[in-house]
Amino acid sequence: MWWAPRDIAARKDRVTYCLGIVTSDGLVMASDSRSNAGYDQVNVCRKMYRFVNEGERVFVILTSGSLSISQSVLSLLRADFDAGLGLAAAPSVYHAARIVGDTVRQVSEIDREALERDNYSFNVHLLLGGQVKGQPPALYLIYPQGNPLQATEDSRYLQLGEVKYGRPILDRGIEADTPLEIAAKYALLSLDATMRSNVTVGPPIDLLLYRKDSLTVDRYRRLEANDPDLRLIHTSWESSLRRAVQQLPEIDFAREPATDLG
Amino acid sequence: MWWAPRDIAARKDRVTYCLGIVTSDGLVMASDSRSNAGYDQVNVCRKMYRFVNEGERVFVILTSGSLSISQSVLSLLRADFDAGLGLAAAPSVYHAARIVGDTVRQVSEIDREALERDNYSFNVHLLLGGQVKGQPPALYLIYPQGNPLQATEDSRYLQLGEVKYGRPILDRGIEADTPLEIAAKYALLSLDATMRSNVTVGPPIDLLLYRKDSLTVDRYRRLEANDPDLRLIHTSWESSLRRAVQQLPEIDFAREPATDLG
Repeated sequence: MWWAPRDIAARKDRVTYCLGIVTSDGLVMASDSRSNAGYDQVNVCRKMYRFVNEGERVFVILTSGSLSISQSVLSLLRADFDAGLGLAAAPSVYHAARIVGDTVRQVSEIDREALERDNYSFNVHLLLGGQVKGQPPALYLIYPQGNPLQATEDSRYLQLGEVKYGRPILDRGIEADTPLEIAAKYALLSLDATMRSNVTVGPPIDLLLYRKDSLTVDRYRRLEANDPDLRLIHTSWESSLRRAVQQLPEIDFAREPATDLG
Repeated sequence: MWWAPRDIAARKDRVTYCLGIVTSDGLVMASDSRSNAGYDQVNVCRKMYRFVNEGERVFVILTSGSLSISQSVLSLLRADFDAGLGLAAAPSVYHAARIVGDTVRQVSEIDREALERDNYSFNVHLLLGGQVKGQPPALYLIYPQGNPLQATEDSRYLQLGEVKYGRPILDRGIEADTPLEIAAKYALLSLDATMRSNVTVGPPIDLLLYRKDSLTVDRYRRLEANDPDLRLIHTSWESSLRRAVQQLPEIDFAREPATDLG
């Protein structure tokens, strides 16, 4: 592996990193695929799900938290969608976010009591990005309580899971007019930074670009650990960073009087 | 302010960021100065302390956690030092780390019970970097329990407080042979990334470079929020990052069959 193992003692809700970005061009959705990472067991599990009616609506859902709970939520959403209900009938992404939240509450009704009796928390967070024809694309985070939070003009990305390592690069680069392909690079760098510093987040990476008003999903990549594009981006980035550090202006250190602070 | 306010709801033990780096050239010690940041009250408090006998020994201590506790620890260490005891007599940095740890345990004896009765934890972490003549420089983290952890060949930096935002840049750049001035730039970038993504960590920044075998402290800077060098490094870095992202290789997105995963 080309990233260093750190932070091996994982909290379960940190064993993931998912990211959605909304710009004026559309959406970038990205997720890792690590589940229940630990000393002796690292499972791979997809966290990206799509609900598409070509030319009419596109929804992409990313999940974190208990796999059992998110699977139940997705199963219920899929059954409704296939029957032309739920996400298949939502008039906007906001309504879709409410439908996802209602489904979370439905699973909470079924499972929360039994989980909490044995001191497991009802833990599931979802990102929903998408577009319904005639409406703008939008991005929401749905909490375990079922309520939605929308990405705003001032805060154009939302994250799930182990969010801190990958935030600085996003804070420096993502703006309204960031082109979709550039936003996708920021997403990969954010995931790369997280995987570099935390072994419980790992490939393959699912990366999906949705161009506004296309109402189809035609740009998707699953990047395995040894994917040559991913390695090239990683090494190219590291050498660019090192060059950039070398080129930073020098810090002027004053010779300091010995009588200064203790 | 030139960093965005986020994460305002601060946990107290996250209201700080301190960093020590040890390379074959010497030590870099850096700390922010924010204390008890909150909605209506942001105090500035120095977290860097020095114990120097020129030509014989240099110790630099950075602190996080309860200010009351760290002040007590430092007061006791200072009184002993001024009397030619404690850190003034330690035969190596390891022994010095043990002396700091013993002092933590001494304050724990005095304060822990009263704190825990009112549900405050006995929370103090310290970084100790330095050198005693004839011995190599070394860097330690001292836990609230008093035990020390040393920075190693494979892990050349130690952090306190809000550690995650600033870690990726360090993981990419710090190595044994990193020149001291370059290591100092990495330290500033690590602090810059943390301040950018978390409002509870803030300037002024204390930055100290210790060159191996110099046995004196003559390179120290306190960088205020509006320090022109700090602003120049910040803007130069952001524009370098943006250029580097632009120059990353393109990601090839396959046109994907519609029958792919859900």
